[in-house]
Amino acid sequence: MREITGGVCAAQGFKAGGIWCGIKASSRKRDLALIYSDKPCVAAALFTTNRVKAASVLITQEHIAYGKIRGVIANSGNANACTGAAGLAASRSMAELAARKLRLSIEEIGVASTGVIGVPLPVEVIEAGIDSLIGSLSSDTAGHEAALEAIMTTDTRKKDASIEVDINGTPIHIGCMVKGSGMIHPNMATMLCFITTDISISRELLDKALRQAVKRSFNRVTVDGDTSTNDTVLIMANGAAENPPIDAEGPGFQTFAAALEVLCIKLAQAMARDGEGATKLVTVAVQGAADEDAAAVFAKSVASSSLVKAACFGADANWGRVLCALGYGGIDFDPHAVEVTFMSNEGKVTVCRKGTLVSFSEAEAKKILSEEEIEILITVGNGHGQASVWGCDLTYDYVKINGDYRS
Amino acid sequence: MREITGGVCAAQGFKAGGIWCGIKASSRKRDLALIYSDKPCVAAALFTTNRVKAASVLITQEHIAYGKIRGVIANSGNANACTGAAGLAASRSMAELAARKLRLSIEEIGVASTGVIGVPLPVEVIEAGIDSLIGSLSSDTAGHEAALEAIMTTDTRKKDASIEVDINGTPIHIGCMVKGSGMIHPNMATMLCFITTDISISRELLDKALRQAVKRSFNRVTVDGDTSTNDTVLIMANGAAENPPIDAEGPGFQTFAAALEVLCIKLAQAMARDGEGATKLVTVAVQGAADEDAAAVFAKSVASSSLVKAACFGADANWGRVLCALGYGGIDFDPHAVEVTFMSNEGKVTVCRKGTLVSFSEAEAKKILSEEEIEILITVGNGHGQASVWGCDLTYDYVKINGDYRS
Repeated sequence: MREITGGVCAAQGFKAGGIWCGIKASSRKRDLALIYSDKPCVAAALFTTNRVKAASVLITQEHIAYGKIRGVIANSGNANACTGAAGLAASRSMAELAARKLRLSIEEIGVASTGVIGVPLPVEVIEAGIDSLIGSLSSDTAGHEAALEAIMTTDTRKKDASIEVDINGTPIHIGCMVKGSGMIHPNMATMLCFITTDISISRELLDKALRQAVKRSFNRVTVDGDTSTNDTVLIMANGAAENPPIDAEGPGFQTFAAALEVLCIKLAQAMARDGEGATKLVTVAVQGAADEDAAAVFAKSVASSSLVKAACFGADANWGRVLCALGYGGIDFDPHAVEVTFMSNEGKVTVCRKGTLVSFSEAEAKKILSEEEIEILITVGNGHGQASVWGCDLTYDYVKINGDYRS
Repeated sequence: MREITGGVCAAQGFKAGGIWCGIKASSRKRDLALIYSDKPCVAAALFTTNRVKAASVLITQEHIAYGKIRGVIANSGNANACTGAAGLAASRSMAELAARKLRLSIEEIGVASTGVIGVPLPVEVIEAGIDSLIGSLSSDTAGHEAALEAIMTTDTRKKDASIEVDINGTPIHIGCMVKGSGMIHPNMATMLCFITTDISISRELLDKALRQAVKRSFNRVTVDGDTSTNDTVLIMANGAAENPPIDAEGPGFQTFAAALEVLCIKLAQAMARDGEGATKLVTVAVQGAADEDAAAVFAKSVASSSLVKAACFGADANWGRVLCALGYGGIDFDPHAVEVTFMSNEGKVTVCRKGTLVSFSEAEAKKILSEEEIEILITVGNGHGQASVWGCDLTYDYVKINGDYRS
């Protein structure tokens, strides 16, 4: 598996583009993106578990049922959520506008939106910009970059990746872009993630690989505990790599699924690190739980705690808050079996054994916790379950960004 | 029902006191409290649901099983949680020290602690201070005030109340003090609450009245989503009012239970208003749910949302975040039936009907949300269930306070 450049355009047969059409009214930052495959695709997707779903989610859920999506149009600056029947019509229009220009049926286009909730989506500016959007399509990295910029909101960094991996001797490519910064919590983040691949694979196995990868990546990220209305992870596979088709769970499938998981974990970490106002990536790694799912519950409880997050911001080795957060996670355990270690590039320090204080150097702990990437290692018992969850610290800037997001 | 002065000393036969004994090492603020009834009591209590329980909680759970508690010793500055066998011994010693001086059996003393987790409790300073603590006992308001000060940590206001109410023609009294500011979330808050009453009532009915009251008050408060290790609500009834004993659920019981609920709601609101860093009391009132419990779940989900809380801080009428938080609360509803209104002393403005935007004046909404007490009124359907939850805004100061709590 090799990292390569190109993002979603790294997969053969894919183009991408992005423009400013005017949805972001107060700036001229790009706000409309398109990703498109020259060839037919199989596709799979996962969506928010929020009972309030954006119009784009509802429409894409309809379209994904056909499993043939080969393009996705996405906007930032407006979530098109809580917008009623007009919102549904607007999302459908977005798909239709792109489909007509690309000579596809509407079911072959996915739609995604991100931004403020409850404001009507100005579909007329999208209509006015559609030719320019199509014109911006490119199979170069520049096309990928433009599309990626056009899905960003409060994101401060571009989050993308692309890899090449050999599947039974044939090189295949996977490219990915993701946006997500606030309103981020499993399942899933407020995130849009578009993944392209030129592997030839059955739709069923593509779906399976995606679910596995998302479970261990995007569903293990937390920024602020708010599960958004718009979350969408969509993967398209166009078979351009011409590998012998993957239609069974042999080594080829395993290799692809593992590569997809690595890619998604990388982007999940990038999303946590770019959490609104965050100064630190905080990895909470739990071991010794009954199974992987239980370990993930413990890790999420700790990574989601406002008090733990604030302590991370202050580089304060306040392990009592870690134990407290384990305690309300909802799963039984023996508090007297818990061990907690803080770790970073500056070293590691165990602060709690058998559920109580171990004497440690506060100065050393402060130094370790002052790094930009810190890890909280927790042993909760002697089971075999382990899992990591990625989060970030809680900072003044989180409050600042969200105290006045709309204006 | 009349408000009176005196706090826990408003109930006849109760004394209280508080001193500084040295647990709070960096200041000379009071840190050790005692409340005591001259006469035998029946008692009831509720405790944290966190699986990690402070030593004081474990000891008081043992003692409350006898139902005869007539005094409680409490300290601030140290939670005595995650302190292992030594912690249990320390809490037992606290009870024993008080019991010996008051000539009670150890089971008649409750113990409570609040403060930093994971630091050994210096029981020797409590022992050295016990005579002075006993000496500080007073049946005047001053005794109540001293005890209340001694259980405060990051609290910025004193939170107490006392009332007189006629039960079948006899005036009885209920007094209450509460501490709680951060690490507050149902069930319950990081809170200590001690309630005294001179009513004559059976232990069984005292327990029932307490559970009802706490369900609708302290279990409907959220500050930061962290359920603490130390939460304790303890009520003692000594019968000094000499009312005909309440031993059945007639009008006398109903009156007492209602009065207790009103008192607890008042203090729950005070706790939310004094949430760490809070500038506003935010009441989330949900109606139209299937039942009261469902309404409470919706209200908690909204009141707990970091994004809603940050919007309240910014006086931003960001109702989309309210719908989003309803959507991940875990209970089904029709998003197209939702109505949202913001309200305060400055007026009210409906911002969402049938799940979508209603045109409203941003300036007016800003004015309404700039008040110190705001209310978010939500209709989720046409059921009969309604409930209110009290929370606060998320501010820079929350981050500041919790970024460096231990030092």
